[in-house]
Amino acid sequence: MSELIDHTLRAGWTPSGAAAAPLSTRALRWLRDRIGTPEETTPAVPASLLDVPESALAEQARADLAGAVGDQHVLTAVAARLGRAGGLSYSDLIRRRDGGDFAVPDAVVLPADADEVQRVVDLCVQHDLAVVPFGGGTSVVGGVSALRGDKSAVIALDLTRLNRMLSVDPVSRIAVLEAGVRAPEAEALLAGHGLTLGHFPQSYERATIGGFAATRSAGQASSGYGRFESMVDGVRLATPVGDWKLGVAPASAAGPDLRQLAVGSEGALGVITEVALRVRPAPTAHRYEAWVLDGWQAGAEAVRALAQHRALADVTRLSDVDETEVQFELSGALKARALQTFLRGKGIIEPCLLILGWEAQSSGELKRRRAATLRGLDGVRAVRLGRKVGESWRTHRFAGPRQRDTLLDLGICVETLETAAHWSKLGDLRTAVRSAVVRAIGADRKAPIVMCHISHAYETGASLYFTVLASRDPEDPLGQWQRAKAAASEAIAEHGTITHHHAVGTDHLPWLTGEIGAIGISVLAAAKRAVDPTGILNPGKLIPDARQG
Amino acid sequence: MSELIDHTLRAGWTPSGAAAAPLSTRALRWLRDRIGTPEETTPAVPASLLDVPESALAEQARADLAGAVGDQHVLTAVAARLGRAGGLSYSDLIRRRDGGDFAVPDAVVLPADADEVQRVVDLCVQHDLAVVPFGGGTSVVGGVSALRGDKSAVIALDLTRLNRMLSVDPVSRIAVLEAGVRAPEAEALLAGHGLTLGHFPQSYERATIGGFAATRSAGQASSGYGRFESMVDGVRLATPVGDWKLGVAPASAAGPDLRQLAVGSEGALGVITEVALRVRPAPTAHRYEAWVLDGWQAGAEAVRALAQHRALADVTRLSDVDETEVQFELSGALKARALQTFLRGKGIIEPCLLILGWEAQSSGELKRRRAATLRGLDGVRAVRLGRKVGESWRTHRFAGPRQRDTLLDLGICVETLETAAHWSKLGDLRTAVRSAVVRAIGADRKAPIVMCHISHAYETGASLYFTVLASRDPEDPLGQWQRAKAAASEAIAEHGTITHHHAVGTDHLPWLTGEIGAIGISVLAAAKRAVDPTGILNPGKLIPDARQG
Repeated sequence: MSELIDHTLRAGWTPSGAAAAPLSTRALRWLRDRIGTPEETTPAVPASLLDVPESALAEQARADLAGAVGDQHVLTAVAARLGRAGGLSYSDLIRRRDGGDFAVPDAVVLPADADEVQRVVDLCVQHDLAVVPFGGGTSVVGGVSALRGDKSAVIALDLTRLNRMLSVDPVSRIAVLEAGVRAPEAEALLAGHGLTLGHFPQSYERATIGGFAATRSAGQASSGYGRFESMVDGVRLATPVGDWKLGVAPASAAGPDLRQLAVGSEGALGVITEVALRVRPAPTAHRYEAWVLDGWQAGAEAVRALAQHRALADVTRLSDVDETEVQFELSGALKARALQTFLRGKGIIEPCLLILGWEAQSSGELKRRRAATLRGLDGVRAVRLGRKVGESWRTHRFAGPRQRDTLLDLGICVETLETAAHWSKLGDLRTAVRSAVVRAIGADRKAPIVMCHISHAYETGASLYFTVLASRDPEDPLGQWQRAKAAASEAIAEHGTITHHHAVGTDHLPWLTGEIGAIGISVLAAAKRAVDPTGILNPGKLIPDARQG
Repeated sequence: MSELIDHTLRAGWTPSGAAAAPLSTRALRWLRDRIGTPEETTPAVPASLLDVPESALAEQARADLAGAVGDQHVLTAVAARLGRAGGLSYSDLIRRRDGGDFAVPDAVVLPADADEVQRVVDLCVQHDLAVVPFGGGTSVVGGVSALRGDKSAVIALDLTRLNRMLSVDPVSRIAVLEAGVRAPEAEALLAGHGLTLGHFPQSYERATIGGFAATRSAGQASSGYGRFESMVDGVRLATPVGDWKLGVAPASAAGPDLRQLAVGSEGALGVITEVALRVRPAPTAHRYEAWVLDGWQAGAEAVRALAQHRALADVTRLSDVDETEVQFELSGALKARALQTFLRGKGIIEPCLLILGWEAQSSGELKRRRAATLRGLDGVRAVRLGRKVGESWRTHRFAGPRQRDTLLDLGICVETLETAAHWSKLGDLRTAVRSAVVRAIGADRKAPIVMCHISHAYETGASLYFTVLASRDPEDPLGQWQRAKAAASEAIAEHGTITHHHAVGTDHLPWLTGEIGAIGISVLAAAKRAVDPTGILNPGKLIPDARQG
């Protein structure tokens, strides 16, 4: 597995040998009509042409690390280091495809368990090495960039050998998983006990339990199973000041909930090594179906009603008109023109696709929960498209990253960004982000597609997830996106959170102070100094340099 | 209102002039048979006989504080200071009733709003005064004891003038309340908008929004409305380094959730001045009913099934056999003997009372939710006692503290303690706490009653709430309880959290390191140094002296 990852993370998501997600000629023509024809395709430069610096890891440090984890688990070969050279944001991929400027770790260290991770961390303190915890490598915010801060060398601490389930308590419904367990592996391990975690983010195929915890991940079924932080019952971290375990009860008033400090700590307050997770019986029945509502505002109101009646389907996902159009045009699941005519006949002028999915322990429970959801939609103008479209969404729900690879090859600028806000601000927020991105990108080319969906709804508000498709600026592809991202982030900071489930990393750092205040930053910096006095842990991410804090 | 509180908090809960909760002669006889006859009654010593030290507040500090909040809002009279001399634990009350050794603040300062609180905090930094934030004063863990730490004087920062609702967003269902709003006032303010908070802890009549947030409170309807921390959407604190606002969205991945650091901070990381709360439509229908299950283990299993099927009633409260007996004997609502015979006839050998309460927006919703709960009880041996007992529980649900006053007068040692643990550990935990308390108290007198209930259930575990009734040791009433509490706490620390909803204060501090680790303590201490560099905020509570951290 780790070999596979080594070779494939550089250029994109799709594992070598795995099926690509090609666009049909028709879909491609439609897309080019909308955003303009990209001027050049951009296949990835072969790795052999990249100028990767020699490893700066000192021989003694290498020897000590090899002593801790075994010689074969300290990798300094170029392929291994390139495979952990940052995450999977558009900017990461552009840099690595074009052979641009990006940081490469000096070594990849693969410990076997929590104790070995602690030993590696201790050695990194001793040798003053920066440590970037590395799980699935799917960060889209620079969270796993191999920054060395003020250290002479940086290691990627690859956690994928921590791939076991350590215990299951079926009575309390808690499973303890090691941090490097990937989501599909977690589901397979739990399935052996008739259990599920129910965490299905788009990064599902690659991302790990530790990464979910470190970044406050939210899966597509978060309405049913909760955000990842709500699943975390306990957590264990390897820190420069020692092993740290948290979580002894389902709820507590023993001071602040420090689990919620560990969750979201992005490798800057410790390396998460084990997570105790609330699990549920694996569903025995499911049903996914598609509806079309009329217009974004009515659709958002309908989702709000479901959330506030606590009648959300486990998966509740509302696309705006633009995203609905793109889904119909690109998916090929339905004949887009015929569908539009059909919907107009039903009085739907601005079709907004709503995917509803329920997972249940019995058909009776499924029926009752579905009925509750549909009662919540009473009085909403809605046309049912049925199960075929719903199940098609379910089948392809992890295909997005592969499709992005295809679009990258075609010379398209494709990236996502996301936020959450209170219901009363959601409409303005969406409008503001769309205009900001269109203005930033559209100056001297065709307007980009800026499409949006709600995929996580709460009683007090919801997330907004934007996908941007634009004709790439071949002269300055990074600058093109960075300007759009900055403009969007300014708009977001006005109305909501800078990130609902992508985390801070490097990319959102400039907006964190606005969100948690200078006092919040100083509290994070103080916590970091307490657990990481020499600042070896994931420098440059989440927390500004602690010694300046 | 504040005058009332001044005069009444010293000796007990019951406001002067309010109805006491007398025990019937029969009930009293039963109780004395069970735990032995107390050797002396202990009416409170008149306040005039207490030896209250002069205020140590320097004249300049007093003048500056008066400049900030108005002369009439800086109180140094004995009655005002006595009224904020600690909380309402058994030990607090014994000390104040007997005229024992307890700390009295040097002044009571009553700011009008968040800005005035900030000014008071700034002045306390300037004059190096300890600050004890004081809301309802209902802490049962020493959380509002007037400890001065290394400062020359300590003020009680009384927040009850911060009693407004600052805004309501009915679309997002968020209300911003000032910290000093008492729970009944909050409900009244929200009722004007057709809304409710749904937070009904036993301290309801006195306790405040700020106090709930500071201590991670959990109300009796937590199964339906959630723990208080789950209601907190945003929070504002006055800290020695400035005003700090948190919370911009319903959920976020922008690093650790610092709201969950503020919630539970017990006045040690800032004075909570405003809280943005998730609210819900006020229920238009409710139904409370009582059931009797057979035996603690079967009862706990039934509650676990409800929690894990997510079919809990909003109020779900299971008493063990001892608590059930006490409730039947003391309440007078049912004829205890006749009931026992009736239950035996139904095959119930060890009656465990189960209170179920639903609150809903419509009778249809109520019916559906009740049906779901009752489906979850399928196959459990259960006898329905009906709505009368359920409604009687609801009517008297805040009477516990008043009843305790009566028992205190009678010379009875009466106190509660609580914890939470995972389901698989709950049985052992209950047994261990019971034996620990019985052993500690029962050496040279009749065995105490140690009764228990589950009132907060989660998918992975539940709370256990113990009430202890014993014949008081007149020679050493404090020592008697402190030994029992220490023994119980040791047992608790083995299996679960040292506190599920009473907070840490001074009383649980010895066990906090065991729960969050020395690293957890150092993180809290570091956070405190960041926001309270000179250590003025609530010294001696929650966080060991930060300068030693």
